[in-house]
Amino acid sequence: MTKTRNINSTIDDLFSRTTIVPRRAFLGMGAAISAATLFQASETHAVGVKTSKANSLPVTQEELDYMRQAIDLMRRAGVVDRTGGPFGAVIVRDGQILSAEGNSVLRDNDPTGHAEVNAIRAACKKVGSPHLTGATMFTSCECCPMCYATSYWAQIDKVYYAASWQDYKQYFDDGAINADMCNHKSQRKIRMSQIMQAEAQEVWSEYGRLADRKNY
Amino acid sequence: MTKTRNINSTIDDLFSRTTIVPRRAFLGMGAAISAATLFQASETHAVGVKTSKANSLPVTQEELDYMRQAIDLMRRAGVVDRTGGPFGAVIVRDGQILSAEGNSVLRDNDPTGHAEVNAIRAACKKVGSPHLTGATMFTSCECCPMCYATSYWAQIDKVYYAASWQDYKQYFDDGAINADMCNHKSQRKIRMSQIMQAEAQEVWSEYGRLADRKNY
Repeated sequence: MTKTRNINSTIDDLFSRTTIVPRRAFLGMGAAISAATLFQASETHAVGVKTSKANSLPVTQEELDYMRQAIDLMRRAGVVDRTGGPFGAVIVRDGQILSAEGNSVLRDNDPTGHAEVNAIRAACKKVGSPHLTGATMFTSCECCPMCYATSYWAQIDKVYYAASWQDYKQYFDDGAINADMCNHKSQRKIRMSQIMQAEAQEVWSEYGRLADRKNY
Repeated sequence: MTKTRNINSTIDDLFSRTTIVPRRAFLGMGAAISAATLFQASETHAVGVKTSKANSLPVTQEELDYMRQAIDLMRRAGVVDRTGGPFGAVIVRDGQILSAEGNSVLRDNDPTGHAEVNAIRAACKKVGSPHLTGATMFTSCECCPMCYATSYWAQIDKVYYAASWQDYKQYFDDGAINADMCNHKSQRKIRMSQIMQAEAQEVWSEYGRLADRKNY
């Protein structure tokens, strides 16, 4: 099958294009070069790793393989097994795959069954923590606001994504949710109203007085 | 115990204050008055239900009881059983409680174990659908961006909340996540980069050609 690639250059495209760095060349840079140096945003790094735009990240062949796996899971979830929409995600830390999941919204009747949320929950279970500090997520499609916020709570460090919201907005309008969430509370799609604030503030006072409170 | 109530009048406060309507008076309005009329935003409705500000919702004694239950779950989760932070949520539709859950982030090592997400997942399981169209959520604390986005996907209709982000920002900084999510992608806390878009677009083409695709 063939498909004409969308060549529209949106602002987001300009910001997010990534230069592929051959794995051997990348690894050959040597351990002395810190990751911080490699990943900082600039046109050309001191060691010659060219990145096309600010905020783009260099990528190795190994990382491309993780994304291939995410796209395989995407196809399986949405086209083959039909457990939900076509979305797949892989989470990696220190060269180890912590989880690899597809979307399961339809199979599980679970609106949170997005590939990224499924992968984050599975990875957290594996490592025995609600946090995945330092982990990278490879997701077949741009994170929706729920998945981005979940990644934030989970302390995911980096996200590589393949398809853009624009590529599937006729099926899932993630951009509309994002726009809604940037509106003032009074203008949101879901109507919200505050009641009994004082009663809940009392519980926060009790929580604040706990001597052995576990912050997270 | 006593606690001085925070009397700061923020813009959000002004928008979200709700007038309590005695249940009998509310029920006495009669079935002929449609819910649409009751809940529309105005200073004074035709039937005399006064709401203090645009977008505020009238509330019945029964609804206050649902919120009391959510605050009980909040106390249990954060102060008594310590399964996570002090958050509780109850989901109701057509006068039936579909779910009532507390936060379980620590017990389950699950960053998605917020009370609202737990309640949405439990309610969806109960009704056998990823959607809760027409349901109302009573949550002890203002929804974080993850919980709001989850409510959006689940098609929750209304949310009543008690404590504000401001009440617990020293413990959980939901406002910071919300602000981050309204930044341009290139300025977000989680670094994001796009790779292999064409390969994922191919899968979207395959998905688009499915004759019996189940949209949701």
